[in-house]
Amino acid sequence: MSRDPFDWIDAHAERRREAGLVRTLRPRQAESTLLDLAGNDYLGLARHPQVTGAGADACLLWGAGSTGSRLVTGTTELHTELEAELAEFCGFEAALVFASGYAANLAAVTALTGPGTLIVSDTSNHASLIDGCRLSRADTEVVAHRDTEAVRKALDAHDGPAVVVSDSVFSVDGDAAPLTGLAAACRQHGAALLVDDAHGLGVLGEGGRGAAWAAGLAGAPDVVVTATLSKSLGSQGGVVLGPARVIEHLVNAARTFIFDTGLAPAAAGAALGALRLLRAEPERAERARAVALQLYDRLTAAGLRSARPDACVVAVRAPSAGEALQWAADCRTAGLAVGCFRPPSVPDGISRLRLTARGDLTDQQIAEAVEVIVRTAPRDSARSGELAGA
Amino acid sequence: MSRDPFDWIDAHAERRREAGLVRTLRPRQAESTLLDLAGNDYLGLARHPQVTGAGADACLLWGAGSTGSRLVTGTTELHTELEAELAEFCGFEAALVFASGYAANLAAVTALTGPGTLIVSDTSNHASLIDGCRLSRADTEVVAHRDTEAVRKALDAHDGPAVVVSDSVFSVDGDAAPLTGLAAACRQHGAALLVDDAHGLGVLGEGGRGAAWAAGLAGAPDVVVTATLSKSLGSQGGVVLGPARVIEHLVNAARTFIFDTGLAPAAAGAALGALRLLRAEPERAERARAVALQLYDRLTAAGLRSARPDACVVAVRAPSAGEALQWAADCRTAGLAVGCFRPPSVPDGISRLRLTARGDLTDQQIAEAVEVIVRTAPRDSARSGELAGA
Ligand SMILES: Cc1ncc(COP(=O)(O)O)c(C=O)c1O
Ligand SMILES: Cc1ncc(COP(=O)(O)O)c(C=O)c1O
Repeated sequence: MSRDPFDWIDAHAERRREAGLVRTLRPRQAESTLLDLAGNDYLGLARHPQVTGAGADACLLWGAGSTGSRLVTGTTELHTELEAELAEFCGFEAALVFASGYAANLAAVTALTGPGTLIVSDTSNHASLIDGCRLSRADTEVVAHRDTEAVRKALDAHDGPAVVVSDSVFSVDGDAAPLTGLAAACRQHGAALLVDDAHGLGVLGEGGRGAAWAAGLAGAPDVVVTATLSKSLGSQGGVVLGPARVIEHLVNAARTFIFDTGLAPAAAGAALGALRLLRAEPERAERARAVALQLYDRLTAAGLRSARPDACVVAVRAPSAGEALQWAADCRTAGLAVGCFRPPSVPDGISRLRLTARGDLTDQQIAEAVEVIVRTAPRDSARSGELAGA
Repeated sequence: MSRDPFDWIDAHAERRREAGLVRTLRPRQAESTLLDLAGNDYLGLARHPQVTGAGADACLLWGAGSTGSRLVTGTTELHTELEAELAEFCGFEAALVFASGYAANLAAVTALTGPGTLIVSDTSNHASLIDGCRLSRADTEVVAHRDTEAVRKALDAHDGPAVVVSDSVFSVDGDAAPLTGLAAACRQHGAALLVDDAHGLGVLGEGGRGAAWAAGLAGAPDVVVTATLSKSLGSQGGVVLGPARVIEHLVNAARTFIFDTGLAPAAAGAALGALRLLRAEPERAERARAVALQLYDRLTAAGLRSARPDACVVAVRAPSAGEALQWAADCRTAGLAVGCFRPPSVPDGISRLRLTARGDLTDQQIAEAVEVIVRTAPRDSARSGELAGA
């Protein structure tokens, strides 16, 4: 046996280097001249003075940290206020706020399932839902992407409690789940529907009330929604929305609620500030969706391969991981920050540029972004057609 | 099959009610007259103006959220600065900051183990380490609490890579792990040692450099330390400290790093502010430990059953869950907030009051706290002797 327990890491690093898959951190500066189409700040609220002001005020008034588990000292009146307003806005009976969306997903999946439960999970679900399935003691059946028929079949074959789990908008390609069909399948079988609305809250539904609202499922007794406060609300944290008894159950049973420090007051305050801004200016949600469609229309008109976005994520197919990386780097050189998703962060092994629409982008900025992306595209990415499977 | 998929929750709620184990949230006010011996703000920094000021400034300068994964837009120069100063302070080559300590533990355990790895885990380890073991594809052997011999035996019986995982200070009873013995056992077997220093950072070691520093293990090539920014640093977030190649591996492989939004700037800024304050005033760590010992000495002198604290957590045994709850409620009525740990949050089923020492408590406040706890103690808790097994 090796005397150094971490020697194996070097071999992993070497393999990554050979495959061109090394990830490095690229620290941002406070004032950057880059045009940002990479972050998930869909409404452009992360740096809005009302949002940062609310965050700063909360930090000064309530303290920098919540100082303990939500069950001990980590619940302030600010947390309760945020929960009440989130529940009301999204149309659910109750809400529970977590330190992250990741923690909210782990909580919802594990606390609502157990031995004997069947979880039916879309193959493209977010890592945090997948980790929730792994942590639960339930049987998980992974079904094909957006395949309601496969969900029905899985439920048909199971006798006992079941939970169908799906992103509302999938994080890699930005395509939407067939929520209406999933809900119908669930109801026919007495199964629960758990929807991760990380990319839908603030963007979809009337005034950004989310994907469940848009599908007429808000407040349904058999539907639970999770979301993050870190994307359209421009802050940090997660939330579970659902019937009061489900929320009460999470308070008592969810490990990532009980054994985690409560969300920092600054993050709670900023999220509340963003929510109030969105209520006052509901057109922000619509504008974000329109920007996404503009990006898509122009990029596909230029021959790039993309899928029609259902929310704010626009994925553009790249021929290979190496070319995707080069493409993103060339965009950056030209002043444009875009995301680059490569294995193992993509479900199908296909590398992509990942663009995010922001409601605060001007038409001029959109035009600039499209110009840069098209100009720097690798040769054989300029084929017409949709992103396969998306 | 039931038509309402959440009907089973009512039965769970009923059982909790019958057992007296219902948890409810008790929102704090911004200005409370309660004396707080319940939070984990060991150095009293969560509301220190230099810390809240640094948090508020970071929120205003960098934005309310980090806007994306650390690999995309979620790394700011502030994150890099915090990582560099944490690594230097704790004596490790490199550091990586996460959205929570929970996420840091999931990352460290899962990314450093795999199929064929043996994880040897103390039975009293924190929930996040346990969840990390469950998420890993390694075999986990749970060993008795603080039992170095059992660790040796488990390692002896295994041929292949192994990681020994332990809290440095256990969160329920505040007792310390035998780090020197664990490290020796690890070295003999070429195993790695992973220490969760959530309750040690800022409290143990020279100037609060942590339990690994105190044990002479800081910077060792086979030791990885995790910690939270939410306790002695008064903020939110988590960190993994270790050899540079381990940190680089986490950047490339840890799901709770790659698929989670980066820590909010306010939390990073506040943690950095707290760290700098601690460097400038290293006596804060010593004072926190002294307060804990004072609490212990006085409570046991009054006949209560407690274990000598190794850091800032002082656990006092209660005869039953119901009496623990009543005791905590009576303390609260008398103006003192204390923690109350009951099943399922305790490893051994024994309910406790959980007091946390804060370095900023005055002698007068300590005397008041002891007076209240002793006066409100349930009758048969006033037996002499140590908390069994602690
Ligand atoms: C679909 C989805 N769910 C959950 C999360 C996790 O949320 P958070 O980053 O707040 O932990 C993310 C992204 O980070 C996401 O894209
Ligand atoms: C020992 C231990 N490890 C990890 C954590 C998790 O850290 P955080 O609350 O920052 O997620 C905690 C407490 O919350 C803890 O007590």
